[in-house]
Amino acid sequence: MVNFKIIIRTLGILLLIEGFSMAFALLVAYIYNETAAAAFLKSIIFCFATGGIAILFTRKASKNLGKREAFTIVTLVWVLFSAFGSLPYFFSHSLPDFTNAFFETMSGFTTTGSSVIDNVEEMPNSILLWRSLTHWLGGMGIIVLSLAILPIFGIGGMQLYAAEVPGPVPDKISPKIKHTAKTLWAIYVLFTLAETLLLWAGGMSFFDAINHSFATMATGGFSTKQASIAYWDSPFIQYVIVFFMFLAGTNFSLLYCALAGKFKRIIHDEEFKYYTLFIAGFTLFIFSGLISSTSLGIEKAFRNSLFQVVSIITTTGFATTDYLTWLPSLTVLLFALFFFGGSAGSTGGGLKIMRIVILLKNSYYELRRMIHPQAVIPVRFNNHSVDQKIVTNVLAFFIIYFLTFIVGVIAFTIFEPNLDTAMGAVATSLGNIGPGLGSVGPAETFSHIHPIGKWFLSLLMLLGRLEFFTVLVLFSPSFWKN
Amino acid sequence: MVNFKIIIRTLGILLLIEGFSMAFALLVAYIYNETAAAAFLKSIIFCFATGGIAILFTRKASKNLGKREAFTIVTLVWVLFSAFGSLPYFFSHSLPDFTNAFFETMSGFTTTGSSVIDNVEEMPNSILLWRSLTHWLGGMGIIVLSLAILPIFGIGGMQLYAAEVPGPVPDKISPKIKHTAKTLWAIYVLFTLAETLLLWAGGMSFFDAINHSFATMATGGFSTKQASIAYWDSPFIQYVIVFFMFLAGTNFSLLYCALAGKFKRIIHDEEFKYYTLFIAGFTLFIFSGLISSTSLGIEKAFRNSLFQVVSIITTTGFATTDYLTWLPSLTVLLFALFFFGGSAGSTGGGLKIMRIVILLKNSYYELRRMIHPQAVIPVRFNNHSVDQKIVTNVLAFFIIYFLTFIVGVIAFTIFEPNLDTAMGAVATSLGNIGPGLGSVGPAETFSHIHPIGKWFLSLLMLLGRLEFFTVLVLFSPSFWKN
Repeated sequence: MVNFKIIIRTLGILLLIEGFSMAFALLVAYIYNETAAAAFLKSIIFCFATGGIAILFTRKASKNLGKREAFTIVTLVWVLFSAFGSLPYFFSHSLPDFTNAFFETMSGFTTTGSSVIDNVEEMPNSILLWRSLTHWLGGMGIIVLSLAILPIFGIGGMQLYAAEVPGPVPDKISPKIKHTAKTLWAIYVLFTLAETLLLWAGGMSFFDAINHSFATMATGGFSTKQASIAYWDSPFIQYVIVFFMFLAGTNFSLLYCALAGKFKRIIHDEEFKYYTLFIAGFTLFIFSGLISSTSLGIEKAFRNSLFQVVSIITTTGFATTDYLTWLPSLTVLLFALFFFGGSAGSTGGGLKIMRIVILLKNSYYELRRMIHPQAVIPVRFNNHSVDQKIVTNVLAFFIIYFLTFIVGVIAFTIFEPNLDTAMGAVATSLGNIGPGLGSVGPAETFSHIHPIGKWFLSLLMLLGRLEFFTVLVLFSPSFWKN
Repeated sequence: MVNFKIIIRTLGILLLIEGFSMAFALLVAYIYNETAAAAFLKSIIFCFATGGIAILFTRKASKNLGKREAFTIVTLVWVLFSAFGSLPYFFSHSLPDFTNAFFETMSGFTTTGSSVIDNVEEMPNSILLWRSLTHWLGGMGIIVLSLAILPIFGIGGMQLYAAEVPGPVPDKISPKIKHTAKTLWAIYVLFTLAETLLLWAGGMSFFDAINHSFATMATGGFSTKQASIAYWDSPFIQYVIVFFMFLAGTNFSLLYCALAGKFKRIIHDEEFKYYTLFIAGFTLFIFSGLISSTSLGIEKAFRNSLFQVVSIITTTGFATTDYLTWLPSLTVLLFALFFFGGSAGSTGGGLKIMRIVILLKNSYYELRRMIHPQAVIPVRFNNHSVDQKIVTNVLAFFIIYFLTFIVGVIAFTIFEPNLDTAMGAVATSLGNIGPGLGSVGPAETFSHIHPIGKWFLSLLMLLGRLEFFTVLVLFSPSFWKN
């Protein structure tokens, strides 16, 4: 039997947490004397009432939390948080309807960063803070999910990472998860604080600094300015953000190692090696292209290339320039990065570097296998042979990702006939990035997209963020059989 | 030691065969009293002289033909045939330069069907026949390659097919290949004749009928009319071509079974089942779309949908309508078919139905594997468990295909800034289809593409046609070590 009570109870508790989080935005509303305060008060009451009732009616729930309950909770919490999290936008009339509010909130909690707001600078500060906070909470959630829950259930090769990476990784749902979560969240909070102080020191207002730190560490991408990071033409601010985007796209277990002084582990980590190599390679290509095709100075061309590459590969989505104005081949090169994504166990989305490396290695090894048909040539990762099962698992993940992309683009062209826009919107939603191509480029928003298109993209964000299998498994009848 | 002499000798013999084939075009030139006759005469002398010298200097070659020699011959013969096969275009000044002549010939021998000719109707008949003949010869070559040579070397899962499919499939390079080849070629000739007679009976001139039969059975796509099959608004002619494109995209082993009366084998063949299901599904979708968005009658809308779907999935590339004028989602839906391709062991290119089915099944099974982590759940195909090695092999093939597509598009946008055109040109070349998107759609040609772009697409056609590994393996040092 599925333990529905514990599902409802857990969701109820989480809703209380969402309500408490909104209190921070309420506080900001009072500080700035904004009318949005009423909207937050109303939203908090909704969260508390619903959560309270859920908890009240499930007092006798057994603590039995298995695979089925965990998967269900993970998917439902993202949907529920987005539904309740959109209430402040809705009640304060900051966004015209529930569709837009839900899109913005799902984009927040999935750390995507695609926005429907065309007048960011006119928004109340409390709404902007709540928007950044959805990123930050989503990022917290994803760290626990990817380092504690997914590895146990072997989703998309994540079990490989659980086994390979040193650091605080638990081996089953147990009190140890609590310890892991606390350690990782401490790192998350620490880096958020550090970035806030640095950005503040660099000339940002304290309010902007904290918002952008939330968005950076979650690899989200919401900005308090319509022009995103291009608003601050300060090399210091931009390099600081590059640095923290890079950290946010790194496996948090490695960040833990770094803080614990175990630098050897970081140097020997293969995913980290390829992560930096990919960034260096793509930056070099785009830098050469920008130098030869624009009149930007060397430093500015380098900064723009590095910023955009790190922003896209980590799936943050901040912009210092509109990459759609680049030479087409540079834009397409950057678009290829839409399918990379951050490291496993980071707040980044996308396919993840680990999977890309395993896919590439397997194809390369296949050539050798053909030449030496008798030899057994397994894929090696972090100096270990990777079980064939994990390779198939990663490949299955890739096929599902790719297939969803294609079917998504076909479906999306029904609302948006431009192929570039459709490809950009679908890829950016699946990869939880933010900006796309065509009419949803970095200089545009998603406000003009058809309502059905917005719901569709919200679904894609959820699928991408939860690594597909977590959601898909819920629709399999045999998952529910004993 | 690599037996270079047998490589040179085999290529020499094959060049003589190319020279003999040109004699048919020479004959046509004499019949129609065309000045192109001189060009063919000159080309034949080139083939015979080069081939003759090669044979003369390698009389003492040992008959030792191994893996390395076979792979080298397969890649070189397509390059050599294209180089010598472009001489008639070049000598007769039918095409402006060697680049265009080579592109057209590579497109012919790889059964792609992309053309640089903007005035097909003004071309001499002998040139048009030679153009169709390159298709037909390429198709012959590919049948032997895919049913006799590739399975032995286990390329992209083809060994699976060799083991699974009933019919005349040999198990190593042996005299049996000769028998297999003869049987399959007999089927090929038989169907070509049958189609020619039917098209002739349907109102085509005999010359047009034979040219289109060559192009159909090879899943090529060159037409003797600029408007392709749209030139004949005859349902009979168009349905006849649909039927033979369908046959050409079927595994030739199955066609052999059909002629031998073993229909049960065909019905139980899983690749054939999905091949027909995919065609039915895509036709239905596009038909519904056309009915609701155009004023075409039911029959015409059905015929256009079916024709285009079969033309693209079999990688033929004939057109009865310009699919770029359809609703964008229908065009994108058809573009998804660019990545399907015909059945293994057919003359069709692309990824092949077998691979698509294995990829999809593996992803679907992965869900079940996650739900039952203890169970061993192999992919099943044609009622047999597929060895995990073959699944990895197919997946490696897909990744290389996909990666080449992405890198190809990025590189191609350097010459062709339009993303649709770049994606269309690269996908159509890799899949050996013919028409693309944007400025290389079915109503356009490739004549305006930059010369470097043409050489690049020629390379992609070759890679796609020879299933990548055949070519890539030649660049691996360990392949050449003892």
